[in-house]
Amino acid sequence: MDIADKYFNCTNSERAVFEAGIKLGTVYHQFVGAPISKDNVEVLEKSIAEGAKVQPFVVDAAVKIDRRRLREKSTDYDYLTLTGDMLDVALTVQYEDVTVICEMRHIPEMDYPLMYVKEIIRKDQ
Amino acid sequence: MDIADKYFNCTNSERAVFEAGIKLGTVYHQFVGAPISKDNVEVLEKSIAEGAKVQPFVVDAAVKIDRRRLREKSTDYDYLTLTGDMLDVALTVQYEDVTVICEMRHIPEMDYPLMYVKEIIRKDQ
Amino acid sequence: MDIADKYFNCTNSERAVFEAGIKLGTVYHQFVGAPISKDNVEVLEKSIAEGAKVQPFVVDAAVKIDRRRLREKSTDYDYLTLTGDMLDVALTVQYEDVTVICEMRHIPEMDYPLMYVKEIIRKDQ
Amino acid sequence: MDIADKYFNCTNSERAVFEAGIKLGTVYHQFVGAPISKDNVEVLEKSIAEGAKVQPFVVDAAVKIDRRRLREKSTDYDYLTLTGDMLDVALTVQYEDVTVICEMRHIPEMDYPLMYVKEIIRKDQ
Repeated sequence: MDIADKYFNCTNSERAVFEAGIKLGTVYHQFVGAPISKDNVEVLEKSIAEGAKVQPFVVDAAVKIDRRRLREKSTDYDYLTLTGDMLDVALTVQYEDVTVICEMRHIPEMDYPLMYVKEIIRKDQ
Repeated sequence: MDIADKYFNCTNSERAVFEAGIKLGTVYHQFVGAPISKDNVEVLEKSIAEGAKVQPFVVDAAVKIDRRRLREKSTDYDYLTLTGDMLDVALTVQYEDVTVICEMRHIPEMDYPLMYVKEIIRKDQ
Repeated sequence: MDIADKYFNCTNSERAVFEAGIKLGTVYHQFVGAPISKDNVEVLEKSIAEGAKVQPFVVDAAVKIDRRRLREKSTDYDYLTLTGDMLDVALTVQYEDVTVICEMRHIPEMDYPLMYVKEIIRKDQ
Repeated sequence: MDIADKYFNCTNSERAVFEAGIKLGTVYHQFVGAPISKDNVEVLEKSIAEGAKVQPFVVDAAVKIDRRRLREKSTDYDYLTLTGDMLDVALTVQYEDVTVICEMRHIPEMDYPLMYVKEIIRKDQ
């Protein structure tokens, strides 16, 4: 048993979704505000995904940034800073026998970058 | 039913801990790096707690920053920036019939700012 | 002479505006993304201003967040996260005999949160 | 003349160092807190440098993160979050006829991640 485990009072699936929530909160609040244009969008996507993968229990991460509003760098001010509504993120988190797929994406009808639990897979099922 | 709810495939208690995880990730990754000294520690604590409380499903928030390493401002460089190991945070998150108490604090034996689920309370219990 | 001074190769006024630039970059990139609604806008403004004032050479700070887009909390999703175009910041930075007033505000014709040097005051003038 | 220019009341060299200061403040306060281990250190360095280069007037950027404290990922908690004292950054900023080389690095005798103006080069010199 991990030292950390004794602090938790919850089931394995609750633990797995808790860890998933932490990681989506991390992606949003660490990287929103980062300078972005068409020139660095790919490395920023990769950096966000690889950053998620070094955190505990993350086994996969896919990050897409919406390029429609990005500008080619032609004048000095042709860049934006990353906002939540540009982000499309899917993370796979595994804790013990439970795997969680969680996502963040902009929901137009809410005008909100929603983080949600898409699927919980238990090994025995 | 909320528009958001249709995106979720999980129980109420899983939803509640997921939301709790998001908020702890937010606190850490939004505010770590903020300039801090003895002069602004109280307003920063308050600002972090009030920020958590405007997020969905957070019903209470307590934030303490460890003052032992903070400096009185006597020279220009007498300040630090906030690190995770200074933070002691407790959040109460409520989703439908489930209340979650989650915490973040520095665990000396892990040398790590651990985020954990302290308690899950179901109304019917 | 300060230990730091030996690393600088510039005049006092160049040093003063350099320090001013650092602080505006700090405000933007530390706090953009923070959760905000009408309930916590005042404490967030105060927290940003007080954070600037603990940094080296900042002698005054005024921070206003545009309330027009903020929501009263009536449903769980009635909040936003801080964006650069909501921020109106004025900082006074003093290094030796030079005082700099710098500002950040959204310039509609550029659709850009511009940081600029409003005034440089030399004591002898 | 750029629309932005009318907001500035300073010389070209003061403008150039102001822009340099903004960018160093951006690097620190955007990326401190990002999850980091030996597995993602290279992509994070690249992402910080490329992010600086899309900002106005930055013509070159070099970012090194101190690997000595980073961990190989063997247990779930074998990662850190980026702190200022790990960062070694050099930026070249050009405004009109002035080029500024500015740096940020941890100064052991100050125990402080100092941002400083290393050199200002005027074309006519």
